[in-house]
Amino acid sequence: MAVKALFFDIFGTVVDWRGGVAREAEAILAPQGYRIDWLAFADAWRDEYQPAMEKVRAGKLPFSKLDLLHRHNLDRIRPRFGLDDLSEDLCRDLNTAWHRLPAWPDVPEGLTRLRAQFLLAPVSNANIGLMARLARHNGFHWDAILGAEIAGDYKPKPRVYEAACEAFDLPPHECMMVAAHSYDLAAAAACGLRTAHVARPDEAGPSTGESGPRVPVDVAASDFINLARQLA
Amino acid sequence: MAVKALFFDIFGTVVDWRGGVAREAEAILAPQGYRIDWLAFADAWRDEYQPAMEKVRAGKLPFSKLDLLHRHNLDRIRPRFGLDDLSEDLCRDLNTAWHRLPAWPDVPEGLTRLRAQFLLAPVSNANIGLMARLARHNGFHWDAILGAEIAGDYKPKPRVYEAACEAFDLPPHECMMVAAHSYDLAAAAACGLRTAHVARPDEAGPSTGESGPRVPVDVAASDFINLARQLA
Repeated sequence: MAVKALFFDIFGTVVDWRGGVAREAEAILAPQGYRIDWLAFADAWRDEYQPAMEKVRAGKLPFSKLDLLHRHNLDRIRPRFGLDDLSEDLCRDLNTAWHRLPAWPDVPEGLTRLRAQFLLAPVSNANIGLMARLARHNGFHWDAILGAEIAGDYKPKPRVYEAACEAFDLPPHECMMVAAHSYDLAAAAACGLRTAHVARPDEAGPSTGESGPRVPVDVAASDFINLARQLA
Repeated sequence: MAVKALFFDIFGTVVDWRGGVAREAEAILAPQGYRIDWLAFADAWRDEYQPAMEKVRAGKLPFSKLDLLHRHNLDRIRPRFGLDDLSEDLCRDLNTAWHRLPAWPDVPEGLTRLRAQFLLAPVSNANIGLMARLARHNGFHWDAILGAEIAGDYKPKPRVYEAACEAFDLPPHECMMVAAHSYDLAAAAACGLRTAHVARPDEAGPSTGESGPRVPVDVAASDFINLARQLA
């Protein structure tokens, strides 16, 4: 296949946003006396994710970093969880929950193996600062942080995949997008990239995620270690 | 000082461009029967560096990646070294000499120590692909690759330093530029960044480089290990 670089979706594919946001929210808010459904809070926050980016994709909003969209979304859902009176400091702290999400258990070993063969970069909708801190939190070693911020638009817009290939000075067919979401892979394939699906069937709770690809892909993997084995 | 991120100039500060280009050129061209003054070739190639970028800075050329400027500069100097008839493949190979430059001996240990305390990123005029491959060659672990390509302009234009701080979501006074060149540090300081000078007195041959800062800086270090010690 002559693939030289792997590009990774992050939220859901590499890290567990749901468990992570729930855990961070509880760690920050429970000591302040708040008792809410932490998983429901994570789900509600994430539900605002695509609609917020869609305004940017549609050209209704200029490009804004995901940290800013996350904060805007947090402020939208706060009233629903009785968090209207949160201090600015607590809101800021809470917004960095996305900087401290845990990797799925198979990721560290999988990435270490893949690193021996390929250039590795996140091609996520997250901003560079968020990705850099998430990498520190989990010990990821990326070759660069690509994705929405260097493209000035959000996936699945073609510009994001094209900008990633261009940043590594590689033609699209030498790059492979790795994601747990078929819409992401379909968009990457339309730009000429190779694609690998990684199953995350329990992404947002039991049986909520994709247990397999819903579009044609080059590789369908059960997890990152399996992906490394298939690409070896 | 509350510095959270260190930004690094690369050519001359972190890696030995002169010895590296000379060595790579010899490794590629000597087997083809060429016998030239390899260090003079490296110097001539580097001499075209600032004039080429100046056209971009002055707005006479749209932003072009350094790999492209290097190639253009190579084609300019080839006749002077009897390399007019080099094949396209050899030219391409030669142009990637800049991807394989060796770090100065103090750099690996210095960066490892600094990494325990700070976010680390190159803020170089090199493009992302060049920096990623240079990092692989030397085992550098950057948190992100910032610099000219994400800014769309070349140092010492203020936009390059500002874009780096913004990418890490940090105010300039929490970022420190590390360089062996006073002009780079003066420009960073004018943008509000902290500055550290690292002495590379033999950068382009004995006593050609700066043995100390020629402008006011926050830290003047003899090498990267000394820098780590001063910032600890």
